[in-house]
Amino acid sequence: MIVSINGVLSEAADARIDPADRGFTLGDGIFETIVVRRNAVRHLAAHLARFKRGADLLGIPLPGDDNAIANMIGATIVGNKATEGVVRMTLTRGPGARGIVPPANPQPTLLITIAPLPPEAEPAKVIVATSTRRNEHSPLSRIKHLNYLDNILARQEATKAGADDAILLNTAGRVAESTVANIFVLVDGYMLTPPVEDGALPGIIRGEAIKLARAEERSIAVEMLPRASEVFLTNALGVRSVTHIDGAPIGDGEPGLITQLLATRL
Amino acid sequence: MIVSINGVLSEAADARIDPADRGFTLGDGIFETIVVRRNAVRHLAAHLARFKRGADLLGIPLPGDDNAIANMIGATIVGNKATEGVVRMTLTRGPGARGIVPPANPQPTLLITIAPLPPEAEPAKVIVATSTRRNEHSPLSRIKHLNYLDNILARQEATKAGADDAILLNTAGRVAESTVANIFVLVDGYMLTPPVEDGALPGIIRGEAIKLARAEERSIAVEMLPRASEVFLTNALGVRSVTHIDGAPIGDGEPGLITQLLATRL
Repeated sequence: MIVSINGVLSEAADARIDPADRGFTLGDGIFETIVVRRNAVRHLAAHLARFKRGADLLGIPLPGDDNAIANMIGATIVGNKATEGVVRMTLTRGPGARGIVPPANPQPTLLITIAPLPPEAEPAKVIVATSTRRNEHSPLSRIKHLNYLDNILARQEATKAGADDAILLNTAGRVAESTVANIFVLVDGYMLTPPVEDGALPGIIRGEAIKLARAEERSIAVEMLPRASEVFLTNALGVRSVTHIDGAPIGDGEPGLITQLLATRL
Repeated sequence: MIVSINGVLSEAADARIDPADRGFTLGDGIFETIVVRRNAVRHLAAHLARFKRGADLLGIPLPGDDNAIANMIGATIVGNKATEGVVRMTLTRGPGARGIVPPANPQPTLLITIAPLPPEAEPAKVIVATSTRRNEHSPLSRIKHLNYLDNILARQEATKAGADDAILLNTAGRVAESTVANIFVLVDGYMLTPPVEDGALPGIIRGEAIKLARAEERSIAVEMLPRASEVFLTNALGVRSVTHIDGAPIGDGEPGLITQLLATRL
Protein backbone atom coordinates (compact mmCIF):
# COMPACT_ATOMS: atom_id res chain seq x y z
CA MET A 1 0.00 0.00 0.00
CA ILE A 2 1.11 3.52 -0.84
CA VAL A 3 0.55 6.24 1.74
CA SER A 4 0.96 10.00 1.57
CA ILE A 5 2.67 11.99 4.32
CA ASN A 6 2.55 15.73 3.71
CA GLY A 7 2.14 15.03 0.01
CA VAL A 8 5.07 12.62 -0.30
CA LEU A 9 4.07 9.12 -1.45
CA SER A 10 5.84 6.04 -0.12
CA GLU A 11 5.26 2.40 0.66
CA ALA A 12 3.48 2.11 4.02
CA ALA A 13 6.34 -0.05 5.32
CA ASP A 14 8.74 2.83 4.65
CA ALA A 15 6.51 5.61 5.96
CA ARG A 16 7.53 6.99 9.33
CA ILE A 17 5.69 8.90 12.01
CA ASP A 18 8.00 10.77 14.37
CA PRO A 19 7.74 9.34 17.94
CA ALA A 20 7.41 12.98 19.11
CA ASP A 21 4.36 13.57 16.89
CA ARG A 22 1.59 14.98 19.10
CA GLY A 23 -0.89 12.82 17.24
CA PHE A 24 0.88 9.84 18.80
CA THR A 25 1.68 11.33 22.21
CA LEU A 26 -1.51 13.32 22.90
CA GLY A 27 -4.12 12.43 20.27
CA ASP A 28 -3.69 16.02 19.08
CA GLY A 29 -5.38 15.94 15.69
CA ILE A 30 -8.38 15.22 13.48
CA PHE A 31 -9.36 12.87 10.69
CA GLU A 32 -11.89 12.23 7.93
CA THR A 33 -13.07 8.98 6.40
CA ILE A 34 -14.04 9.38 2.75
CA VAL A 35 -15.54 6.78 0.44
CA VAL A 36 -14.34 6.28 -3.12
CA ARG A 37 -16.68 4.40 -5.44
CA ARG A 38 -16.42 3.98 -9.20
CA ASN A 39 -13.47 6.37 -9.29
CA ALA A 40 -15.46 9.11 -7.56
CA VAL A 41 -14.57 10.66 -4.19
CA ARG A 42 -17.88 10.98 -2.34
CA HIS A 43 -18.91 14.23 -0.64
CA LEU A 44 -15.39 15.61 -0.91
CA ALA A 45 -16.37 19.26 -0.43
CA ALA A 46 -18.35 18.47 2.74
CA HIS A 47 -15.48 16.39 4.14
CA LEU A 48 -12.97 19.14 3.41
CA ALA A 49 -15.25 21.73 5.04
CA ARG A 50 -15.60 19.65 8.22
CA PHE A 51 -11.85 18.95 8.22
CA LYS A 52 -11.23 22.69 8.11
CA ARG A 53 -13.67 23.35 10.97
CA GLY A 54 -11.87 20.75 13.09
CA ALA A 55 -8.45 22.18 12.30
CA ASP A 56 -9.70 25.68 13.12
CA LEU A 57 -11.11 24.61 16.49
CA LEU A 58 -7.81 23.00 17.47
CA GLY A 59 -5.69 25.75 15.91
CA ILE A 60 -3.79 23.37 13.62
CA PRO A 61 -2.76 25.00 10.33
CA LEU A 62 -3.84 23.08 7.22
CA PRO A 63 -0.95 22.19 4.91
CA GLY A 64 -2.73 23.65 1.88
CA ASP A 65 -6.05 24.82 0.50
CA ASP A 66 -8.90 22.54 -0.60
CA ASN A 67 -7.35 22.04 -4.01
CA ALA A 68 -3.96 21.07 -2.61
CA ILE A 69 -5.52 18.57 -0.20
CA ALA A 70 -7.81 17.18 -2.91
CA ASN A 71 -4.73 16.69 -5.09
CA MET A 72 -2.95 14.78 -2.32
CA ILE A 73 -6.01 12.56 -1.92
CA GLY A 74 -6.12 12.01 -5.68
CA ALA A 75 -2.41 11.16 -5.80
CA THR A 76 -2.87 8.60 -3.01
CA ILE A 77 -5.76 6.95 -4.88
CA VAL A 78 -3.83 6.89 -8.15
CA GLY A 79 -0.65 5.72 -6.41
CA ASN A 80 -2.60 2.68 -5.21
CA LYS A 81 -4.28 2.18 -8.62
CA ALA A 82 -7.56 2.18 -6.67
CA THR A 83 -10.99 2.77 -8.20
CA GLU A 84 -12.78 2.30 -4.90
CA GLY A 85 -11.91 2.22 -1.22
CA VAL A 86 -12.01 4.15 2.02
CA VAL A 87 -9.65 7.11 2.20
CA ARG A 88 -8.61 8.30 5.62
CA MET A 89 -6.87 11.60 6.09
CA THR A 90 -5.34 12.29 9.48
CA LEU A 91 -4.01 15.71 10.44
CA THR A 92 -1.96 16.15 13.60
CA ARG A 93 -0.16 19.12 15.11
CA GLY A 94 3.12 17.35 14.31
CA PRO A 95 6.17 16.91 16.56
CA GLY A 96 6.29 18.74 19.88
CA ALA A 97 8.45 18.97 22.98
CA ARG A 98 7.42 17.35 26.28
CA GLY A 99 4.19 18.68 27.75
CA ILE A 100 0.87 19.80 26.33
CA VAL A 101 1.72 23.37 25.28
CA PRO A 102 1.46 23.44 21.47
CA PRO A 103 4.63 24.47 19.61
CA ALA A 104 4.67 28.09 18.49
CA ASN A 105 5.39 27.10 14.89
CA PRO A 106 3.74 23.71 14.40
CA GLN A 107 4.84 21.48 11.52
CA PRO A 108 1.61 19.48 11.08
CA THR A 109 1.53 15.93 9.79
CA LEU A 110 -1.03 15.06 7.11
CA LEU A 111 -1.27 11.31 6.57
CA ILE A 112 -3.50 9.99 3.77
CA THR A 113 -4.17 6.27 3.44
CA ILE A 114 -6.65 4.12 1.55
CA ALA A 115 -8.16 0.82 2.65
CA PRO A 116 -10.40 -1.62 0.75
CA LEU A 117 -14.11 -0.86 0.73
CA PRO A 118 -15.62 -3.21 3.33
CA PRO A 119 -18.45 -5.57 2.29
CA GLU A 120 -21.94 -4.17 2.81
CA ALA A 121 -22.70 -4.24 6.54
CA GLU A 122 -25.18 -6.80 7.87
CA PRO A 123 -28.05 -5.48 10.01
CA ALA A 124 -26.68 -4.68 13.44
CA LYS A 125 -27.49 -5.88 16.91
CA VAL A 126 -26.44 -3.12 19.30
CA ILE A 127 -26.28 -2.49 23.02
CA VAL A 128 -26.61 0.72 25.00
CA ALA A 129 -23.15 1.23 26.44
CA THR A 130 -22.92 1.35 30.22
CA SER A 131 -19.12 1.54 30.39
CA THR A 132 -18.84 5.23 29.49
CA ARG A 133 -20.65 8.36 28.35
CA ARG A 134 -20.08 10.84 25.54
CA ASN A 135 -19.20 14.37 26.70
CA GLU A 136 -21.67 16.71 25.01
CA HIS A 137 -20.21 19.59 27.08
CA SER A 138 -16.99 19.47 25.04
CA PRO A 139 -16.73 21.20 21.65
CA LEU A 140 -14.78 18.11 20.60
CA SER A 141 -18.11 16.27 20.28
CA ARG A 142 -18.72 18.40 17.18
CA ILE A 143 -15.50 17.58 15.29
CA LYS A 144 -13.95 14.34 14.06
CA HIS A 145 -10.84 14.08 16.21
CA LEU A 146 -8.34 11.45 17.28
CA ASN A 147 -9.54 10.92 20.87
CA TYR A 148 -11.41 7.67 20.35
CA LEU A 149 -10.95 5.91 23.67
CA ASP A 150 -14.54 6.35 24.92
CA ASN A 151 -15.77 4.87 21.64
CA ILE A 152 -13.23 2.04 21.85
CA LEU A 153 -14.34 1.20 25.41
CA ALA A 154 -17.98 1.12 24.30
CA ARG A 155 -17.15 -1.01 21.26
CA GLN A 156 -15.24 -3.48 23.44
CA GLU A 157 -18.31 -3.67 25.70
CA ALA A 158 -20.44 -4.43 22.62
CA THR A 159 -18.09 -7.16 21.45
CA LYS A 160 -18.10 -8.77 24.89
CA ALA A 161 -21.92 -8.78 24.79
CA GLY A 162 -21.92 -10.38 21.33
CA ALA A 163 -23.23 -7.19 19.72
CA ASP A 164 -22.01 -5.34 16.62
CA ASP A 165 -21.96 -1.81 17.94
CA ALA A 166 -22.88 0.26 20.99
CA ILE A 167 -25.04 3.34 21.47
CA LEU A 168 -23.31 6.01 23.53
CA LEU A 169 -25.43 8.10 25.87
CA ASN A 170 -24.33 11.60 26.77
CA THR A 171 -23.67 12.71 30.34
CA ALA A 172 -27.37 13.60 30.74
CA GLY A 173 -28.37 10.07 29.74
CA ARG A 174 -29.71 10.97 26.31
CA VAL A 175 -28.81 9.12 23.10
CA ALA A 176 -25.82 10.68 21.31
CA GLU A 177 -24.56 8.30 18.60
CA SER A 178 -22.99 4.88 18.09
CA THR A 179 -19.25 4.27 18.40
CA VAL A 180 -18.75 4.88 14.67
CA ALA A 181 -22.02 6.32 13.35
CA ASN A 182 -24.96 8.65 13.87
CA ILE A 183 -28.27 7.17 14.88
CA PHE A 184 -31.84 7.65 13.60
CA VAL A 185 -34.94 6.39 15.38
CA LEU A 186 -38.50 6.13 14.05
CA VAL A 187 -40.82 6.66 17.05
CA ASP A 188 -44.56 7.28 16.94
CA GLY A 189 -44.27 8.05 13.23
CA TYR A 190 -41.51 10.66 13.71
CA MET A 191 -38.02 10.13 12.36
CA LEU A 192 -35.66 11.55 15.00
CA THR A 193 -31.92 11.99 15.32
CA PRO A 194 -30.07 13.52 18.28
CA PRO A 195 -29.11 17.19 17.91
CA VAL A 196 -25.45 18.16 17.84
CA GLU A 197 -25.96 19.75 21.29
CA ASP A 198 -26.62 16.25 22.67
CA GLY A 199 -23.22 15.05 21.47
CA ALA A 200 -24.02 13.86 17.93
CA LEU A 201 -21.14 14.36 15.51
CA PRO A 202 -22.44 16.46 12.59
CA GLY A 203 -22.00 13.58 10.16
CA ILE A 204 -22.14 14.22 6.44
CA ILE A 205 -24.42 11.27 5.64
CA ARG A 206 -26.41 12.24 8.76
CA GLY A 207 -27.07 15.59 7.06
CA GLU A 208 -28.17 13.86 3.86
CA ALA A 209 -30.40 11.46 5.76
CA ILE A 210 -32.06 14.31 7.70
CA LYS A 211 -33.06 15.87 4.38
CA LEU A 212 -34.14 12.66 2.65
CA ALA A 213 -36.08 11.26 5.61
CA ARG A 214 -37.35 14.66 6.77
CA ALA A 215 -35.92 13.78 10.16
CA GLU A 216 -36.14 16.09 13.17
CA GLU A 217 -33.14 16.83 15.35
CA ARG A 218 -34.63 16.16 18.75
CA SER A 219 -33.33 14.74 22.03
CA ILE A 220 -33.88 11.01 22.35
CA ALA A 221 -34.35 9.70 25.87
CA VAL A 222 -33.01 6.19 26.29
CA GLU A 223 -36.49 5.17 27.45
CA MET A 224 -37.82 5.92 23.94
CA LEU A 225 -35.68 3.27 22.27
CA PRO A 226 -37.98 0.27 23.04
CA ARG A 227 -40.85 2.14 21.35
CA ALA A 228 -38.93 2.58 18.08
CA SER A 229 -40.31 0.83 15.01
CA GLU A 230 -37.12 1.43 12.99
CA VAL A 231 -33.54 2.30 13.97
CA PHE A 232 -30.59 2.84 11.67
CA LEU A 233 -27.02 4.12 11.75
CA THR A 234 -25.29 6.40 9.25
CA ASN A 235 -21.66 7.17 8.55
CA ALA A 236 -19.47 7.76 5.51
CA LEU A 237 -19.91 4.09 4.56
CA GLY A 238 -23.69 4.50 4.28
CA VAL A 239 -26.78 3.31 6.16
CA ARG A 240 -26.85 0.30 8.49
CA SER A 241 -30.08 -1.12 9.88
CA VAL A 242 -30.33 -1.85 13.60
CA THR A 243 -32.57 -4.82 14.33
CA HIS A 244 -31.96 -5.36 18.05
CA ILE A 245 -31.07 -3.18 21.04
CA ASP A 246 -29.92 -4.93 24.22
CA GLY A 247 -31.32 -8.17 22.83
CA ALA A 248 -34.84 -6.85 22.18
CA PRO A 249 -36.05 -6.68 18.56
CA ILE A 250 -36.87 -3.34 16.93
CA GLY A 251 -40.33 -3.79 15.37
CA ASP A 252 -40.37 -7.32 13.95
CA GLY A 253 -36.59 -7.62 14.21
CA GLU A 254 -36.07 -7.11 10.46
CA PRO A 255 -34.65 -4.02 8.69
CA GLY A 256 -37.37 -1.36 8.41
CA LEU A 257 -38.83 -0.11 5.14
CA ILE A 258 -37.65 3.49 5.44
CA THR A 259 -34.20 2.23 6.44
CA GLN A 260 -34.02 0.01 3.34
CA LEU A 261 -35.19 2.84 1.10
CA LEU A 262 -32.59 5.24 2.53
CA ALA A 263 -29.86 2.61 2.22
CA THR A 264 -30.41 2.51 -1.54
CA ARG A 265 -30.11 6.30 -1.76
CA LEU A 266 -27.15 7.00 0.54
CA MET B 1 18.51 11.67 22.16
CA ILE B 2 18.17 7.91 22.49
CA VAL B 3 14.65 6.45 22.65
CA SER B 4 13.42 2.95 23.38
CA ILE B 5 10.73 1.27 21.28
CA ASN B 6 9.73 -2.12 22.65
CA GLY B 7 13.08 -2.33 24.36
CA VAL B 8 15.19 -1.49 21.28
CA LEU B 9 17.29 1.65 21.70
CA SER B 10 17.90 3.99 18.77
CA GLU B 11 18.52 7.64 17.97
CA ALA B 12 15.19 9.51 18.04
CA ALA B 13 15.78 10.60 14.44
CA ASP B 14 15.90 6.94 13.39
CA ALA B 15 12.98 5.76 15.54
CA ARG B 16 9.81 5.04 13.62
CA ILE B 17 6.18 4.84 14.62
CA ASP B 18 4.05 2.92 12.12
CA PRO B 19 1.45 5.24 10.49
CA ALA B 20 -1.13 2.50 11.26
CA ASP B 21 -0.34 2.60 14.99
CA ARG B 22 -3.62 3.08 16.85
CA GLY B 23 -1.87 5.48 19.20
CA PHE B 24 -1.50 7.80 16.21
CA THR B 25 -4.83 7.10 14.49
CA LEU B 26 -7.16 6.81 17.52
CA GLY B 27 -5.28 7.93 20.62
CA ASP B 28 -5.56 4.30 21.73
CA GLY B 29 -3.07 4.14 24.58
CA ILE B 30 -1.76 5.37 27.91
CA PHE B 31 1.33 7.06 29.31
CA GLU B 32 3.24 7.89 32.46
CA THR B 33 5.53 10.80 33.27
CA ILE B 34 8.25 9.84 35.74
CA VAL B 35 10.85 12.11 37.30
CA VAL B 36 14.50 11.10 37.60
CA ARG B 37 16.59 13.07 40.10
CA ARG B 38 20.10 12.30 41.32
CA ASN B 39 20.09 9.00 39.42
CA ALA B 40 16.89 7.88 41.20
CA VAL B 41 13.62 7.07 39.43
CA ARG B 42 10.91 8.63 41.61
CA HIS B 43 7.83 6.66 42.70
CA LEU B 44 8.54 3.96 40.12
CA ALA B 45 6.37 1.30 41.76
CA ALA B 46 3.37 3.65 41.94
CA HIS B 47 3.82 4.68 38.29
CA LEU B 48 4.08 1.06 37.17
CA ALA B 49 0.95 0.16 39.17
CA ARG B 50 -1.07 2.98 37.58
CA PHE B 51 0.30 2.08 34.13
CA LYS B 52 -0.93 -1.47 34.66
CA ARG B 53 -4.38 -0.28 35.76
CA GLY B 54 -4.67 1.82 32.60
CA ALA B 55 -3.54 -1.01 30.34
CA ASP B 56 -6.03 -3.35 32.04
CA LEU B 57 -8.93 -0.93 31.57
CA LEU B 58 -8.16 -0.59 27.86
CA GLY B 59 -7.30 -4.27 27.41
CA ILE B 60 -3.81 -3.56 26.09
CA PRO B 61 -1.31 -6.30 27.00
CA LEU B 62 1.83 -5.03 28.72
CA PRO B 63 5.05 -6.04 26.93
CA GLY B 64 6.57 -7.41 30.12
CA ASP B 65 6.34 -7.47 33.90
CA ASP B 66 7.36 -4.63 36.21
CA ASN B 67 10.98 -5.75 36.16
CA ALA B 68 11.13 -5.88 32.38
CA ILE B 69 9.61 -2.40 32.04
CA ALA B 70 11.84 -1.01 34.79
CA ASN B 71 14.83 -2.41 32.90
CA MET B 72 13.72 -0.71 29.68
CA ILE B 73 13.36 2.58 31.57
CA GLY B 74 16.81 2.08 33.08
CA ALA B 75 18.35 1.30 29.69
CA THR B 76 16.83 4.48 28.23
CA ILE B 77 18.25 6.58 31.07
CA VAL B 78 21.67 4.97 30.75
CA GLY B 79 21.57 5.19 26.94
CA ASN B 80 21.18 8.96 27.31
CA LYS B 81 23.85 9.13 30.06
CA ALA B 82 21.22 10.99 32.08
CA THR B 83 21.31 11.46 35.85
CA GLU B 84 18.11 13.47 35.92
CA GLY B 85 15.20 14.19 33.60
CA VAL B 86 11.57 13.42 32.87
CA VAL B 87 10.94 9.92 31.53
CA ARG B 88 7.79 9.40 29.54
CA MET B 89 6.57 5.92 28.72
CA THR B 90 3.80 5.62 26.17
CA LEU B 91 1.98 2.36 25.53
CA THR B 92 -0.36 1.99 22.55
CA ARG B 93 -2.34 -0.92 21.17
CA GLY B 94 0.03 -0.90 18.16
CA PRO B 95 -0.87 -1.12 14.47
CA GLY B 96 -4.44 -1.88 13.46
CA ALA B 97 -6.59 -2.11 10.35
CA ARG B 98 -9.11 0.62 9.43
CA GLY B 99 -11.87 1.14 12.00
CA ILE B 100 -12.04 1.11 15.78
CA VAL B 101 -12.32 -2.63 16.44
CA PRO B 102 -9.12 -3.62 18.27
CA PRO B 103 -6.99 -6.29 16.58
CA ALA B 104 -7.47 -9.79 17.99
CA ASN B 105 -3.73 -10.16 18.60
CA PRO B 106 -2.43 -6.68 19.32
CA GLN B 107 1.28 -5.95 18.96
CA PRO B 108 1.54 -3.03 21.41
CA THR B 109 4.06 -0.24 21.05
CA LEU B 110 5.99 0.83 24.15
CA LEU B 111 7.90 4.06 23.59
CA ILE B 112 10.20 5.35 26.33
CA THR B 113 11.80 8.79 26.04
CA ILE B 114 13.57 11.15 28.40
CA ALA B 115 13.50 14.94 28.36
CA PRO B 116 15.48 17.46 30.43
CA LEU B 117 14.11 18.29 33.87
CA PRO B 118 12.38 21.67 33.47
CA PRO B 119 13.40 24.58 35.72
CA GLU B 120 11.38 24.92 38.92
CA ALA B 121 7.95 26.28 38.00
CA GLU B 122 7.08 29.87 38.91
CA PRO B 123 3.87 30.45 40.87
CA ALA B 124 0.96 30.13 38.45
CA LYS B 125 -1.81 32.44 37.39
CA VAL B 126 -4.67 30.26 36.23
CA ILE B 127 -8.11 30.64 34.71
CA VAL B 128 -11.22 28.51 35.04
CA ALA B 129 -11.66 27.05 31.55
CA THR B 130 -14.93 27.88 29.81
CA SER B 131 -14.05 26.22 26.49
CA THR B 132 -14.66 22.65 27.63
CA ARG B 133 -15.45 20.32 30.53
CA ARG B 134 -13.87 17.15 31.88
CA ASN B 135 -16.03 14.04 31.57
CA GLU B 136 -16.22 12.52 35.05
CA HIS B 137 -18.76 9.98 33.69
CA SER B 138 -16.00 8.25 31.73
CA PRO B 139 -13.69 5.71 33.39
CA LEU B 140 -10.97 7.35 31.29
CA SER B 141 -10.91 10.20 33.81
CA ARG B 142 -9.27 7.74 36.22
CA ILE B 143 -6.36 6.66 34.00
CA LYS B 144 -3.54 8.54 32.27
CA HIS B 145 -4.39 8.09 28.60
CA LEU B 146 -3.52 9.68 25.27
CA ASN B 147 -6.78 11.60 24.68
CA TYR B 148 -5.56 15.05 25.65
CA LEU B 149 -7.59 17.31 23.39
CA ASP B 150 -9.90 18.70 26.10
CA ASN B 151 -6.83 19.59 28.14
CA ILE B 152 -5.12 21.10 25.09
CA LEU B 153 -8.18 23.26 24.34
CA ALA B 154 -8.26 24.48 27.94
CA ARG B 155 -4.53 25.19 27.90
CA GLN B 156 -4.87 27.18 24.68
CA GLU B 157 -7.64 29.18 26.35
CA ALA B 158 -5.29 29.88 29.28
CA THR B 159 -2.48 30.99 26.98
CA LYS B 160 -4.83 33.36 25.13
CA ALA B 161 -5.85 34.86 28.48
CA GLY B 162 -2.21 35.34 29.48
CA ALA B 163 -2.48 32.63 32.15
CA ASP B 164 -0.17 29.69 32.90
CA ASP B 165 -2.73 26.93 33.25
CA ALA B 166 -6.48 26.31 33.33
CA ILE B 167 -8.75 24.64 35.86
CA LEU B 168 -11.11 22.16 34.21
CA LEU B 169 -14.60 21.80 35.65
CA ASN B 170 -16.46 18.54 35.26
CA THR B 171 -19.82 18.29 33.49
CA ALA B 172 -21.60 19.08 36.77
CA GLY B 173 -19.62 22.31 37.11
CA ARG B 174 -17.39 21.13 39.95
CA VAL B 175 -13.60 21.52 40.02
CA ALA B 176 -11.80 18.47 38.57
CA GLU B 177 -8.12 19.32 37.97
CA SER B 178 -5.85 21.54 35.90
CA THR B 179 -4.78 20.64 32.36
CA VAL B 180 -1.64 18.91 33.66
CA ALA B 181 -2.04 18.62 37.42
CA ASN B 182 -4.28 17.89 40.39
CA ILE B 183 -5.51 20.80 42.47
CA PHE B 184 -5.64 21.47 46.21
CA VAL B 185 -7.58 24.30 47.82
CA LEU B 186 -7.37 25.59 51.41
CA VAL B 187 -10.85 26.87 52.30
CA ASP B 188 -12.09 27.81 55.80
CA GLY B 189 -9.09 26.00 57.26
CA TYR B 190 -9.77 22.74 55.40
CA MET B 191 -7.35 21.45 52.76
CA LEU B 192 -9.54 19.96 50.01
CA THR B 193 -8.91 18.15 46.75
CA PRO B 194 -11.56 16.89 44.31
CA PRO B 195 -12.42 13.18 44.62
CA VAL B 196 -11.68 10.83 41.74
CA GLU B 197 -15.47 10.59 41.15
CA ASP B 198 -15.45 14.29 40.21
CA GLY B 199 -12.93 13.65 37.43
CA ALA B 200 -9.63 14.04 39.28
CA LEU B 201 -6.89 11.81 37.93
CA PRO B 202 -5.57 9.71 40.84
CA GLY B 203 -2.18 11.40 40.69
CA ILE B 204 0.76 9.89 42.52
CA ILE B 205 1.95 13.15 44.05
CA ARG B 206 -1.72 13.94 44.76
CA GLY B 207 -1.78 10.82 46.93
CA GLU B 208 1.38 11.92 48.76
CA ALA B 209 0.03 15.44 49.24
CA ILE B 210 -3.26 14.14 50.65
CA LYS B 211 -1.31 12.26 53.31
CA LEU B 212 1.17 15.03 54.11
CA ALA B 213 -1.40 17.85 54.19
CA ARG B 214 -4.14 15.69 55.74
CA ALA B 215 -6.33 16.81 52.84
CA GLU B 216 -9.93 15.70 52.41
CA GLU B 217 -11.23 14.43 49.09
CA ARG B 218 -14.35 16.53 48.79
CA SER B 219 -16.24 18.13 45.90
CA ILE B 220 -15.20 21.72 45.25
CA ALA B 221 -17.86 24.01 43.82
CA VAL B 222 -16.41 26.64 41.54
CA GLU B 223 -18.01 29.27 43.81
CA MET B 224 -15.68 28.19 46.62
CA LEU B 225 -12.52 29.19 44.75
CA PRO B 226 -12.65 32.93 45.62
CA ARG B 227 -12.78 31.98 49.32
CA ALA B 228 -9.56 29.96 49.13
CA SER B 229 -6.60 31.21 51.14
CA GLU B 230 -4.16 28.85 49.38
CA VAL B 231 -4.31 26.93 46.09
CA PHE B 232 -1.67 24.64 44.64
CA LEU B 233 -1.21 22.12 41.84
CA THR B 234 0.54 18.75 42.00
CA ASN B 235 1.90 16.42 39.35
CA ALA B 236 4.93 14.20 38.85
CA LEU B 237 7.10 17.33 38.66
CA GLY B 238 6.07 18.43 42.14
CA VAL B 239 4.03 21.22 43.75
CA ARG B 240 3.19 24.50 42.03
CA SER B 241 1.63 27.41 43.87
CA VAL B 242 -1.38 29.18 42.33
CA THR B 243 -1.48 32.87 43.17
CA HIS B 244 -4.31 34.11 40.95
CA ILE B 245 -7.53 32.64 39.52
CA ASP B 246 -9.24 34.55 36.72
CA GLY B 247 -7.16 37.60 37.62
CA ALA B 248 -8.13 37.67 41.30
CA PRO B 249 -5.42 37.04 43.92
CA ILE B 250 -5.58 34.01 46.22
CA GLY B 251 -5.05 35.36 49.74
CA ASP B 252 -2.41 38.07 49.43
CA GLY B 253 -1.41 36.90 45.95
CA GLU B 254 1.77 35.21 47.20
CA PRO B 255 2.49 31.46 47.55
CA GLY B 256 0.88 30.17 50.75
CA LEU B 257 2.80 28.79 53.73
CA ILE B 258 1.42 25.22 53.54
CA THR B 259 2.07 25.23 49.80
CA GLN B 260 5.69 26.24 50.32
CA LEU B 261 6.16 23.63 53.03
CA LEU B 262 4.72 20.87 50.83
CA ALA B 263 6.83 21.98 47.87
CA THR B 264 9.97 21.28 49.89
CA ARG B 265 8.71 17.80 50.75
CA LEU B 266 7.30 16.58 47.40
